[in-house]
Amino acid sequence: MTQKSFNGKTVLLTAGPTHEPIDPVRFIGNHSTGKMGYALAECFAAMGAKVKLVSGPTNLQTYHANIKVKHVLTAEEMYKAVLKYAEAADVWVFAAAVADYRPKTVADRKIKKAGDELTIELVKNVDIAAALGRQKEEWQFSVGFALETDNENSNAREKLRKKNLDMIVLNSLNDPGAGFAHDTNKITIIEEHATHSFELKSKKEVAQDIVNLIWERIYG
Amino acid sequence: MTQKSFNGKTVLLTAGPTHEPIDPVRFIGNHSTGKMGYALAECFAAMGAKVKLVSGPTNLQTYHANIKVKHVLTAEEMYKAVLKYAEAADVWVFAAAVADYRPKTVADRKIKKAGDELTIELVKNVDIAAALGRQKEEWQFSVGFALETDNENSNAREKLRKKNLDMIVLNSLNDPGAGFAHDTNKITIIEEHATHSFELKSKKEVAQDIVNLIWERIYG
Repeated sequence: MTQKSFNGKTVLLTAGPTHEPIDPVRFIGNHSTGKMGYALAECFAAMGAKVKLVSGPTNLQTYHANIKVKHVLTAEEMYKAVLKYAEAADVWVFAAAVADYRPKTVADRKIKKAGDELTIELVKNVDIAAALGRQKEEWQFSVGFALETDNENSNAREKLRKKNLDMIVLNSLNDPGAGFAHDTNKITIIEEHATHSFELKSKKEVAQDIVNLIWERIYG
Repeated sequence: MTQKSFNGKTVLLTAGPTHEPIDPVRFIGNHSTGKMGYALAECFAAMGAKVKLVSGPTNLQTYHANIKVKHVLTAEEMYKAVLKYAEAADVWVFAAAVADYRPKTVADRKIKKAGDELTIELVKNVDIAAALGRQKEEWQFSVGFALETDNENSNAREKLRKKNLDMIVLNSLNDPGAGFAHDTNKITIIEEHATHSFELKSKKEVAQDIVNLIWERIYG
């Protein structure tokens, strides 16, 4: 049996949520804990890769010495960090739950409670995976994540194509025990010509499944 | 020296942020970590009080056996829990950073990214401290918290009066090292006829200062 290894490869990983500030106190967040992305980072590092982990706010820490973490808060900060590291990375894995929208204006001061209603106008954030897809080179391998509640497979396959991804990992919010805040996850990996469904497993095991398939596609 | 004790007293405490869901994935949150409220809970319990802690989402745990925690997510859930425990409690401390507004409608399904702009309409949440102020009995002692960036003292004094509080603890976001996500805090305690300013201290020490002053007002 050959020992699978990513020796000499650099992996760029994003993980966690982003927080989009409304004012100094309030923000729009999401329920990502970062567990899936951090598990992937450990997995790649254990197999010899150098890992650059761009992480939104989480309570997690990394253990392997080959993982270097860059902490960011907003989608825009995450995009800047990703741009900086992407060019030199062999594998990109976009596991973060990046906010699609941010408040149009951020108040310098805490917004005082006044009227009975308040409207927040949001503008679209850069789609990091899609933007990177436009600069991807032939030798680079790009993996996206999708969390869907509706038309899961067809939405995921559309993202694969539009974002120039080699692989997309689909989490379904409809599967009990899968997705945010759980220690388990149930995924489907979608490639251009293949779909792989996995059982409910620990996020650590799920990470190994994903990393194994990436290894197969690069070295297999 | 008399040993200060809250033996036989019940304290209702709120702590942490609230999360107001936009859809199954996104929410509006705030930067409260709950550290101040949890430090107060330990302090009251160590002095003999029975503590009912109504906590928003945090990563903290309690240590003293006299603290019973009720976990909630939204402002509305927090209000319901507070209503349930308030009547029997001798002391109320509203240390949670409750969202003033929540999304008017909560989507059942993840909102798909579509237009370049998105508007979220918010409606006001119940002001828990103010609502409770209207049912406060003579023998009950009520403490609020205020986090201000502008006109700090006058805003805090207005809250004291409007919410029928006996005491308000003012955190200033303008003080470096004070407020959210820090382990230290710099507070001013405002009563109807007195203002007490404290130095920058650990949140544990700040909690002791607050609890000591409450003890003075009840037993002193």
